[in-house]
Amino acid sequence: MRISEAKTELLKEPEILGGMRPLMEQLYPICRSITGQGVRDTLEVIGSRIGLDMVAVPTGTQAFDWTVPKEWNVKGAYIKGPNGDTVVDFARLNLHLVNYSAPFRGVMSLSDLKPHLHSLPEHPDWVPYRTSYYSESWGFCLSHNQLQSLQDGSYEVVVDTSLGDGVLNYGEFLVRGETEREVLFSCHICHPSLGNDNLSGIAVATTLADMLTRMKTRLSYRFLFIPGTIGSIVWLSRNEEWASRIVHGLVLTCIGDAGGFTYKRSRRGDSLTDRYMEHALRRFGVPSQIQDFSPYGYDERQFCSPGFDLPVGCLMRTPHGCYPEYHTSADNLEFVKQQSLEESLRLCLDFIELAENDAVLVNQNPKCEPQLGRRGLYKAVGGQHRQQDFQMAVLWILNQSDGQHSLLDIAERSGIDFATIRHAAERLQDAELLRPAGRA
Amino acid sequence: MRISEAKTELLKEPEILGGMRPLMEQLYPICRSITGQGVRDTLEVIGSRIGLDMVAVPTGTQAFDWTVPKEWNVKGAYIKGPNGDTVVDFARLNLHLVNYSAPFRGVMSLSDLKPHLHSLPEHPDWVPYRTSYYSESWGFCLSHNQLQSLQDGSYEVVVDTSLGDGVLNYGEFLVRGETEREVLFSCHICHPSLGNDNLSGIAVATTLADMLTRMKTRLSYRFLFIPGTIGSIVWLSRNEEWASRIVHGLVLTCIGDAGGFTYKRSRRGDSLTDRYMEHALRRFGVPSQIQDFSPYGYDERQFCSPGFDLPVGCLMRTPHGCYPEYHTSADNLEFVKQQSLEESLRLCLDFIELAENDAVLVNQNPKCEPQLGRRGLYKAVGGQHRQQDFQMAVLWILNQSDGQHSLLDIAERSGIDFATIRHAAERLQDAELLRPAGRA
Amino acid sequence: MRISEAKTELLKEPEILGGMRPLMEQLYPICRSITGQGVRDTLEVIGSRIGLDMVAVPTGTQAFDWTVPKEWNVKGAYIKGPNGDTVVDFARLNLHLVNYSAPFRGVMSLSDLKPHLHSLPEHPDWVPYRTSYYSESWGFCLSHNQLQSLQDGSYEVVVDTSLGDGVLNYGEFLVRGETEREVLFSCHICHPSLGNDNLSGIAVATTLADMLTRMKTRLSYRFLFIPGTIGSIVWLSRNEEWASRIVHGLVLTCIGDAGGFTYKRSRRGDSLTDRYMEHALRRFGVPSQIQDFSPYGYDERQFCSPGFDLPVGCLMRTPHGCYPEYHTSADNLEFVKQQSLEESLRLCLDFIELAENDAVLVNQNPKCEPQLGRRGLYKAVGGQHRQQDFQMAVLWILNQSDGQHSLLDIAERSGIDFATIRHAAERLQDAELLRPAGRA
Repeated sequence: MRISEAKTELLKEPEILGGMRPLMEQLYPICRSITGQGVRDTLEVIGSRIGLDMVAVPTGTQAFDWTVPKEWNVKGAYIKGPNGDTVVDFARLNLHLVNYSAPFRGVMSLSDLKPHLHSLPEHPDWVPYRTSYYSESWGFCLSHNQLQSLQDGSYEVVVDTSLGDGVLNYGEFLVRGETEREVLFSCHICHPSLGNDNLSGIAVATTLADMLTRMKTRLSYRFLFIPGTIGSIVWLSRNEEWASRIVHGLVLTCIGDAGGFTYKRSRRGDSLTDRYMEHALRRFGVPSQIQDFSPYGYDERQFCSPGFDLPVGCLMRTPHGCYPEYHTSADNLEFVKQQSLEESLRLCLDFIELAENDAVLVNQNPKCEPQLGRRGLYKAVGGQHRQQDFQMAVLWILNQSDGQHSLLDIAERSGIDFATIRHAAERLQDAELLRPAGRA
Repeated sequence: MRISEAKTELLKEPEILGGMRPLMEQLYPICRSITGQGVRDTLEVIGSRIGLDMVAVPTGTQAFDWTVPKEWNVKGAYIKGPNGDTVVDFARLNLHLVNYSAPFRGVMSLSDLKPHLHSLPEHPDWVPYRTSYYSESWGFCLSHNQLQSLQDGSYEVVVDTSLGDGVLNYGEFLVRGETEREVLFSCHICHPSLGNDNLSGIAVATTLADMLTRMKTRLSYRFLFIPGTIGSIVWLSRNEEWASRIVHGLVLTCIGDAGGFTYKRSRRGDSLTDRYMEHALRRFGVPSQIQDFSPYGYDERQFCSPGFDLPVGCLMRTPHGCYPEYHTSADNLEFVKQQSLEESLRLCLDFIELAENDAVLVNQNPKCEPQLGRRGLYKAVGGQHRQQDFQMAVLWILNQSDGQHSLLDIAERSGIDFATIRHAAERLQDAELLRPAGRA
Repeated sequence: MRISEAKTELLKEPEILGGMRPLMEQLYPICRSITGQGVRDTLEVIGSRIGLDMVAVPTGTQAFDWTVPKEWNVKGAYIKGPNGDTVVDFARLNLHLVNYSAPFRGVMSLSDLKPHLHSLPEHPDWVPYRTSYYSESWGFCLSHNQLQSLQDGSYEVVVDTSLGDGVLNYGEFLVRGETEREVLFSCHICHPSLGNDNLSGIAVATTLADMLTRMKTRLSYRFLFIPGTIGSIVWLSRNEEWASRIVHGLVLTCIGDAGGFTYKRSRRGDSLTDRYMEHALRRFGVPSQIQDFSPYGYDERQFCSPGFDLPVGCLMRTPHGCYPEYHTSADNLEFVKQQSLEESLRLCLDFIELAENDAVLVNQNPKCEPQLGRRGLYKAVGGQHRQQDFQMAVLWILNQSDGQHSLLDIAERSGIDFATIRHAAERLQDAELLRPAGRA
């Protein structure tokens, strides 16, 4: 169908698969946080690829139980050592500054400074990523080796940040299909120089959005580029009425590392989103694991809160917290593999194909089998194994299409590939032996 | 109950078990097809055992999406070789002629003849069985050894058949029980000299029908002897209104070979037909496998089409296509074992006993256990293990007979033999502690 | 909550755990049966611990299908041997007399006497326990060694019992809670000098009742001390209207031996009673097995008869009939272990805590997660593992509390200890983020 061919064509264009890494390289140095200029810069880069709407919500706006926080911006931040050398500098790596640090200037001894310094003794070369959202404080992150090399003496600390009224920004992009029923793809954009945990999701989502604009689709596709937690809460509070249009959804995160896939089910656990993704994974040929929903993780927590209970799952490769590079400077662009990004993109496309093509069709000749031979549907063409699958697909579809079973149901019950089932269903529709009963 | 004793008595009569092989021997030489004199001859032989109705449906009659085909008859068919010898002759073995071959006469070279010749290289001594329904052509089947021994030269081909307006025949036999609810036994009669794939089912079905005429039954039993596919479609089209009377059904085919049993479930998968047959198989003491329904096989395809969805399963021993002799001259009367036929017959009787005796009964003293002692139902008789089963059966029946559980449910939950459950239920009915709630 | 602290305090009082054995020692010598003075003596001993109601139901009273039997009393019973020595004497061990023996006096030869003597050849030192309810006869039980040592000669038999109009007694004790919904604990009091099969249940039930009178509870607790079978039937016949108040129930029997726990499910199999007990057992740390309901055993047979179908299970350690000492003199007070009694008591208290504390609560902020930080519910306190459990418990409760899931559901789905879930639920109720929807 439309999407299958479009997909094949587009994946041949070099800028599609080849465009993900340059996008990540452009975004990597930007100091993102839940608010601030870094978020806007990020959304502009993404917007240069796809026609993004950048939304701005003022500080202090109520969003359900939450309030939009102050906007945070950084001019610079550094620590100078006893001999006047700059020992830690935000300009060199934005992870050095605890994200959302409150402004501070002062001179202090090493022992007074130390409570503000964070390192990772178990990975002495890596710089950790830390945040201080929702509690006004400041701090720096550095490698444990550097921390241990610091000499006693007087240190000058400059945290030239601002925390004040402003806005929270997020990006939103809708690809309109034939119907208003929406598939949501959401990724967070609040992590600074981190590759897998942020940029991988952004790169895949942006590329997907770009591809979908060039396809004809039945469903509409909504892409959210939002700061974690507060972003999804703000979006839901502003779209409460429309949220029920979302018939499927995926949070995309950590989808660039070398590990196999992890799919975390939606709260419902047996939604079509879950069934499509699990079906796609079984066929994909990359090791994968399925996790039941739990109320800890990414923005699926909000989409799956009981007042919404949307069919939104979370696609990852190695889950957050399960790889040592997580939330450290080692989660950099080298940690993200091109092959992994491409597989993640293709898997999302497989998912979309299922969502686009699944349907409940009704056998128009339900009493006994129809005479397939005179319609050219019986041992029609040559070609061995596939042909036998096609023949069995025809029989399975006719037998099961009583209005209670979708094409996916039939694919799963028969063990025949969904693509073959869909192809056979199209032939049967052409022969007027099947008619849509409504779409799944 | 009535059927159990009748069964035991009848199985002692030598002509019951001993009558199956002579019937098969009588039927074996007849050249059956989906239409023609061979079908009528076959039905007359069966009719000499049981009072069969032979139904005739004219060529061209519409049956749902199908049309009754032309009637096919054979006067003779042979190939004479370059030296004038008859090298292949229908009169010697009816499998030599491709079934439903169109008439033809001609002289041709071996190379022109060869596309019309069929053999089995992997079994060079066997003659294959081939048909050309629904495409007018002709052909011959022979052993691969013979095919390879044919010399170049001129061959005379005579296919003295006719394809013309006539009738499609099938046989139908109803054993009326106390109710109009029917159990269907169906077997196909369209295969010529093949033993397991045709005659085994006919022999067991005929014998069952014969036995049932001599029993008192609650349910009615309908036997169909029909050409495959078109026969069941024609029957369903003529009995559309009545088909819902069928409360259980079994297609009987390939039930004479030496393999274990195979039961293919009805489309519903959990119908009482399925539960009875699976229960009977678990108790029978012959290895068996259960297959889920699939829309490929015998006439259960039509009975289980979604517009009917009848509770009809298929009983086989080794399934079609799973033994090398399938659809070859090696599926002959030696391939069919007397012991296997007898086991298949007994299994069908066990199935019938379950269908006759299962019931939902209601405990008339549902509050606390009744005082069994004063009714002679507590440690009533001696006899060890069986007695303990009887005692537990009484308690299980009383506990579970709340109108929601059938005797089969109780047998399965308790792990007690159905016969013991049924016997205990009768004693409890005698004691007026149980009353039928309606029959299962 | 209230019960948890009360439980901890009470278990520290030495007379609680220490009072079980003295109670059993006091009860052990009494000759109990289904009726008679032994039952009254037993109920008076129990009544000296808790304020028991002793109910008396006259002989001949109808109870569903049953009739209250005659009252049985014993003045004495013995056998004198050929040389005038008393060889068997009820006064030495009440098991020597077949329980419910009809009065008899006579002199007879050993061979005439032997049919009235019962022994256990496989355990030659043990005296069996036998009854003759519902058939008027008499008999004596003795060790097999003693039986074999009896010399030929003339024996004088005296069975100085009476069987006449009187009453059937049982004891009933209700601890009223805030609601009229009741938890039933039932144990039988019809076995004479037997320890595990009778006294263990009585000791634990009496102690539980005593403890509950000193607690504040939401549910009411009813304790029945009844003769087996006829006692529960009589009780149900007199409380038919009220029986539906019973929301949980346990028959306590054989809960003092050294074996692991056995829980036999109620007829429903998935009642909250079953879920609470199975949850408690999984957490308890003593090996346990779960049995499905079967209509054989103790008074759960009556409570679970289809006309009542109450959620009443049966708690045992080694089940009846599965230990060789069962129904013999070897089931004495030494066979009952103090540690086992204590564990059984504690397990019942765990069960009660679940029944008291389980509830369906409703998230009052169901759209997105609430801001936990400003309520002190996010990384609130230190303390590692427990704290993480607490944090996850908060998230699980908020996510699942949609009115469809109880705290037990949430504990089971999340894998978090029920106590942690309950504690987190209380904190969330304090923060007005949860509100009861009705009690489970």
